[in-house]
Amino acid sequence: MPLAVVFPESTQHVSQCVKILAAHNLAIVPRGSGTGLAGGSVVYNQGVIICTTRMSQIHKVDIENRVAIVQAGCRNLTLTDAIACTGLRFSPDPSSQRASTIGGNVSTNAGGINTLKHGVTSNHILGLEVVLPDGEILQTRTHQCYDGIGPDLPGLLCGSEGILGIITRVWCRLVPDPKAFRTIYAVFKTNHDACKTVADVIACGIVPTSMEMMDGKMIQVVENAFHFGFDTTAGALLLIEVDGVDEILDDEMNQIIAIANENHAMDIEFCADAARRAELWAARKKTFGAIGRISRSYCTMDACVPRSKLPEVVQRVTEIGAKHDLQINNVFHAGDGNIHPILLFDEDDAAQVQRVMQASEEILEYCVTIGGTITGEHGVGVEKLAMMHVMFNKPTLKMFLDLKKAFDPKQMLNDAKLIPSDKLRIDLHQPPGSSEHPLTGNFTKNSPGGAL
Amino acid sequence: MPLAVVFPESTQHVSQCVKILAAHNLAIVPRGSGTGLAGGSVVYNQGVIICTTRMSQIHKVDIENRVAIVQAGCRNLTLTDAIACTGLRFSPDPSSQRASTIGGNVSTNAGGINTLKHGVTSNHILGLEVVLPDGEILQTRTHQCYDGIGPDLPGLLCGSEGILGIITRVWCRLVPDPKAFRTIYAVFKTNHDACKTVADVIACGIVPTSMEMMDGKMIQVVENAFHFGFDTTAGALLLIEVDGVDEILDDEMNQIIAIANENHAMDIEFCADAARRAELWAARKKTFGAIGRISRSYCTMDACVPRSKLPEVVQRVTEIGAKHDLQINNVFHAGDGNIHPILLFDEDDAAQVQRVMQASEEILEYCVTIGGTITGEHGVGVEKLAMMHVMFNKPTLKMFLDLKKAFDPKQMLNDAKLIPSDKLRIDLHQPPGSSEHPLTGNFTKNSPGGAL
Repeated sequence: MPLAVVFPESTQHVSQCVKILAAHNLAIVPRGSGTGLAGGSVVYNQGVIICTTRMSQIHKVDIENRVAIVQAGCRNLTLTDAIACTGLRFSPDPSSQRASTIGGNVSTNAGGINTLKHGVTSNHILGLEVVLPDGEILQTRTHQCYDGIGPDLPGLLCGSEGILGIITRVWCRLVPDPKAFRTIYAVFKTNHDACKTVADVIACGIVPTSMEMMDGKMIQVVENAFHFGFDTTAGALLLIEVDGVDEILDDEMNQIIAIANENHAMDIEFCADAARRAELWAARKKTFGAIGRISRSYCTMDACVPRSKLPEVVQRVTEIGAKHDLQINNVFHAGDGNIHPILLFDEDDAAQVQRVMQASEEILEYCVTIGGTITGEHGVGVEKLAMMHVMFNKPTLKMFLDLKKAFDPKQMLNDAKLIPSDKLRIDLHQPPGSSEHPLTGNFTKNSPGGAL
Repeated sequence: MPLAVVFPESTQHVSQCVKILAAHNLAIVPRGSGTGLAGGSVVYNQGVIICTTRMSQIHKVDIENRVAIVQAGCRNLTLTDAIACTGLRFSPDPSSQRASTIGGNVSTNAGGINTLKHGVTSNHILGLEVVLPDGEILQTRTHQCYDGIGPDLPGLLCGSEGILGIITRVWCRLVPDPKAFRTIYAVFKTNHDACKTVADVIACGIVPTSMEMMDGKMIQVVENAFHFGFDTTAGALLLIEVDGVDEILDDEMNQIIAIANENHAMDIEFCADAARRAELWAARKKTFGAIGRISRSYCTMDACVPRSKLPEVVQRVTEIGAKHDLQINNVFHAGDGNIHPILLFDEDDAAQVQRVMQASEEILEYCVTIGGTITGEHGVGVEKLAMMHVMFNKPTLKMFLDLKKAFDPKQMLNDAKLIPSDKLRIDLHQPPGSSEHPLTGNFTKNSPGGAL
């Protein structure tokens, strides 16, 4: 529990709060909507939460220079809806976009469905206003034109999970809406065939907007929940979209279909109209919620692997599940190599919980050994703090900590998140479910409304 | 003059050098080919240069994962030529690419002709290996897949001008070569018409690969040097290219031509074949060299302005030139809003030199007041150190310096470049031409081979 939660309404409020809290040596935890899955916005050490949800205004939409200036607490979908009529959009679209704030998207460098082609949040941030741990207000790269001067502070702050400063305003780059789409889904007998299709499409030089994958168990869960019409006997499903200008999309999609057929696709369906396409994406974005129908709790893993290795990764995840006697369902941003194995469990079964934690660790370690990473888009938070040494060598971890201290010499701002701290130690061996345990994020307790 | 110049051949060499120099408290200046234009690789304070030109190997070209791993001293064009047969390319193409190293491109976050559509160097760097000021070797984001974990160190190091570490290896993102081009040049009576065309094209939603501009004086210089066939009575020239897939290029180019005609284009020529296109780009890339024909020395300014304000910027630059009785020729990466006014002078005329410095400062200050920046692509180096306070407020400058110290606590690595130092003060008021003066970069002494 936090000591207090503050809901400032302006940058000046945030600055004043931070100055008061700093004067009293109180730890601060910045928070948006709290949809993060790695415990990054959770209080540990008797801190005060500064929550940005009342800083939700859109200050300016500048069509001519293609930038929207928003307060950090503005929800992603609020901006999207506000500019829908302009023909422009803010590209990052995490599945949490109905709830998550743009400040939070920046802090976790959020991904989403169209990341494969259009990039992550950091590719769409022109400038930031940030309150530093001493209460000073810093504005950087908030000019109207390209500004490549000096250290790239917005780049550094994207994905910094609130350890360097509190983001208060964001200069969002707006890009033209794609003019046309082609959307298909293809079903396969095996995960291997679907994964191979993904690797082959990328290798042939096409960059689809999205290539999303579900395994057979996940298809059944989603079909039972949403009755979309998926073949529940299939072993795997790919959902593929290309966007751009009409003239070239049929050609691109035909190449993709040829590759799927070479990899023994059982069936391919075109989403011919906008309604069917919207239905398909809604089904995809609600997959995590559907898990609530079959399991009391679940733990969503998040890692990235080289796309060429997807087939063996799925195989290895299955083996790790079998070894620990766990059901694992898979839903991937396959085009990005961003995997989300979902480990099902009952939180009242302590032994099973331990097996889930063990299996999770083995999956992440395996991903690193084949050239992958410990997180794709959900961040490190506290959940994966202990895995950072698997990913990075000592000079790099020291460099990260030195950087943290350059912003926050007293280590009062979200300390011991993302980067192992030399000041605050978090006991990662508390049992999950206890209020001290860091895994408050990816361990989701029966929440059918959840979304990733 | 440096105390010594070291030519290491490997990362280990660099690390060993740095450890020895650190033990003797000797200042270090990293340097690639030395083509930088802001004095970033020049020694001031009795330092030792570590020059990467013998670290020129291409370690690996991985087509499947679209990455090339090169030593920092590999020249940009060497990589480009080496992968020409693969259908892939390393996108950044500064005009210095025949000479400049990829490590140097990273350090200045170099731009180039196709920056408008394809982005600057930082958009194309997947990972870096860096020797830190204590000699430790840091590798970051060198994984085979997307790695958005922790502070974005490669992002931070791109454009850091050698003040944080010495870049030794670069993981370069490779992208498919565009399949087709359309290239035109259009001549106009006035700068205003050409600038307005640029602003209108951007506003209508087309993003050309390049939109380059020359003013009337520059057209004459280039035509007299290269006999391309430009109309020397024209007041301004735009060179516009679009790339992508054949099917949509005619449509895009026709829209651009319509906009040029609306803005009173006098004549428009299509570059129908590859040879003519190559000739046109060669003429553009050699513009700076051609200045040597008409002036003993010249000072190239580099700033960015909002594209919508280009017409008034050209007007203001002309007024500042008139006020100080100076000839100013203009060549712009107009599509990016990146202006390069070229101030001609005779270095033996001390009063004229002073007027050039005064006019340069006025141009930069003006650009900042209209929402622009003090540099577009050439960097800050020492040349623009005194202008950093015009661009950034005190908390930001302090943050920059704190970041510098997080990497380099003793401030031994290229100190007092890019960021005003609290340790080393550089006297910016030495007369140019004296060996102490910082403006050794953009002040180019009669060098017809120069290129930007």
